[in-house]
Amino acid sequence: MDKSNTVTCTAPVNIAVIKYWGKRDEELILPINSSLSVTLHQDQLKTTTTVATSRSFQEDRIWLNGKEEDITHPRLQSCLREIRRLARKRSNDGDPALDSTCLSHKVHICSVNNFPTAAGLASSAAGFACLVYTLARVFGVEGELSDIARQGSGSACRSMYGGFVQWIMGQKDDGKDSLAQQVEPETHWPELRVLVLVASAERKPVGSTSGMQTSVQTSCLLKHRAESVVPGRMAEMIEAVRRKDFAAFAELTMKDSNQFHATCLDTYPPIFYLNSVSQQVINLVHRYNRHYGETRLAYTFDAGPNAVIYTLQQHVPEFVQAVEHFFPPETNRGQFIKGLPVKRVALSEELKQAVGLEPMPKGISYIISTKAGPGPRVVEDPTQHLLGSDGLPKKTLGCPAAQNGQSSTEQ
Amino acid sequence: MDKSNTVTCTAPVNIAVIKYWGKRDEELILPINSSLSVTLHQDQLKTTTTVATSRSFQEDRIWLNGKEEDITHPRLQSCLREIRRLARKRSNDGDPALDSTCLSHKVHICSVNNFPTAAGLASSAAGFACLVYTLARVFGVEGELSDIARQGSGSACRSMYGGFVQWIMGQKDDGKDSLAQQVEPETHWPELRVLVLVASAERKPVGSTSGMQTSVQTSCLLKHRAESVVPGRMAEMIEAVRRKDFAAFAELTMKDSNQFHATCLDTYPPIFYLNSVSQQVINLVHRYNRHYGETRLAYTFDAGPNAVIYTLQQHVPEFVQAVEHFFPPETNRGQFIKGLPVKRVALSEELKQAVGLEPMPKGISYIISTKAGPGPRVVEDPTQHLLGSDGLPKKTLGCPAAQNGQSSTEQ
Repeated sequence: MDKSNTVTCTAPVNIAVIKYWGKRDEELILPINSSLSVTLHQDQLKTTTTVATSRSFQEDRIWLNGKEEDITHPRLQSCLREIRRLARKRSNDGDPALDSTCLSHKVHICSVNNFPTAAGLASSAAGFACLVYTLARVFGVEGELSDIARQGSGSACRSMYGGFVQWIMGQKDDGKDSLAQQVEPETHWPELRVLVLVASAERKPVGSTSGMQTSVQTSCLLKHRAESVVPGRMAEMIEAVRRKDFAAFAELTMKDSNQFHATCLDTYPPIFYLNSVSQQVINLVHRYNRHYGETRLAYTFDAGPNAVIYTLQQHVPEFVQAVEHFFPPETNRGQFIKGLPVKRVALSEELKQAVGLEPMPKGISYIISTKAGPGPRVVEDPTQHLLGSDGLPKKTLGCPAAQNGQSSTEQ
Repeated sequence: MDKSNTVTCTAPVNIAVIKYWGKRDEELILPINSSLSVTLHQDQLKTTTTVATSRSFQEDRIWLNGKEEDITHPRLQSCLREIRRLARKRSNDGDPALDSTCLSHKVHICSVNNFPTAAGLASSAAGFACLVYTLARVFGVEGELSDIARQGSGSACRSMYGGFVQWIMGQKDDGKDSLAQQVEPETHWPELRVLVLVASAERKPVGSTSGMQTSVQTSCLLKHRAESVVPGRMAEMIEAVRRKDFAAFAELTMKDSNQFHATCLDTYPPIFYLNSVSQQVINLVHRYNRHYGETRLAYTFDAGPNAVIYTLQQHVPEFVQAVEHFFPPETNRGQFIKGLPVKRVALSEELKQAVGLEPMPKGISYIISTKAGPGPRVVEDPTQHLLGSDGLPKKTLGCPAAQNGQSSTEQ
């Protein structure tokens, strides 16, 4: 196999602070409102994807987290078709930079996450962003790619950029103006920190694709939210990010998470993503903020019970200690806190009493400590390819975290 | 003490199917939307109130569930003031039926519920309805009383009538057109049954008075609901009740309960009244209905975790059995099911499997089985008076169910 036809890239997870929920076009994945997210750092959470093309490949194939999956999945097909279409266009336009030979070849795709699906994070966003970014490199396609990633998984378009990213809903029927755009780069707000509080999983909740379909069909509050609430919130959120106004950013983040879950409850039959652990985290955050008389923490929840906390660097140690206190873990601290190191501090009795919640043992499995990070990247080191010279997943790869397929929670 | 100046009445609890949440006037208790409820039968749930007047009483006094309470409470004062004002008006108008002597006397009021506050039912509705109804009898006041009951506790106005009752929000600033009105009497739909599923209490949730204030101030979804959703639902609900269309009645009831709780979640900070037991009841009802391919059950939740189930007589035994199966009680059946007797039936394996929920032992403490019932009544038997000839609570009365004051959950 020709090594020059193998490319490996990584792409990040993103967590929305103004939520995406509901499509106006299921096929093209066009949303009913704009949304805004923070791209998380790939040192903690990323998808790695290798794409190879070869004359010898008999058919397009894909392996996700060590397991071969069905390449005919419509959303995978959309991304492959759109990238190949762009490549053909550039080839026909006579772009000399393009090696058009691989256009006739089949692709092998291999993708792994460095985090377990059980973390309930939007792996489909990082996954499709990485797929589209890598395919584009293989086929020599440049320029706007977020509209193609969007057709894989709506929120994937936001993972095409680092830092603070908006997905502008657009107006056109063909979706050409439904694109992601960087609001500020990841270097803009270096003090911002992100903590993913992984709740002990119970049951698998309603998937986001079918959930948002039912919401669009049945919730009159969702329609009102999309048309009359979100436009103002997008403007406010962009302004809060630009000014690095944490209190404004945090309050809007919490209100928008709550409103998204309110529309889930207004769906018929209702959808519950927040469980008793989520409710306890929400109470903890509000009581913590109230105790200090300022908004130091924000929570946001996607289509599952895990909280994502936004805060500033200086508040991380105490809050993590508070989480350990109110959700006493089974494991030791080393296993409880993953990612960026967190200093151990003492928790004041005043704070414990001000919060005044009954501890929920083992309610949270672990915390991932991270921050905002850059967009997709090419991995230059060829030893990092996930596909071997035979075009098959490397044996050493295995299954990084015992996965059962991709999660599809997306906001 | 003159016995003719002692009157005892009873009044019912009501459960809203189109919810009241939010005031446009805190003082007069004027709502931001109309609401509709079913009055429950007093054989199972009622408040009994005795009012006595006497020249010898030094001051107005009140005893609730065996404990003397503060008569200066603004809402109690509103009711006392309004009834006395009407009595004075009739006296000035020269109504010969009115014995005006008692107008100058102080009152003693004694009130008890036949159900524990822990049941989380809207005891303030029954309580204020009973107070106003009894005071009116004592002072010889007739005619419209629901606007006075409303000033004690909003939903109390609906407890002034039996059967199916709407509270028309009205438009006037003085609240004179914010009145309850009977839609259909309790005899209209004899097959309708009501089951109160009392969830094992955890913590006391946010009270409804402060909760709805915060919602009005912070939830943009509540404003939309009140202005744009409820008017249509009121018309649909009245039509469903008139036609005795259970499926339409049930679906609207569930949707409106969910939307009320959605607006609580959209409140900032968010308010949670539904806990994991409530969520399990909601899932049970939807799966039960789906199994039969028809809407046989409806749930509704007020400002607490207890479900109220509406169903038709023929479905009660099986559903109660399902509740016993999915919430295995600690107690025996006799203690688990109170109120109207329920036949024991077998639960089919198909139904158990179709529901497919993990049983939650002790999630529900007990069930109160009841039906629609009449409005307030005078108790003619003088031995039933709660106040003795000395104008003080009878010693035999005691505390019917170890209460700690009135609950104020109202929808």
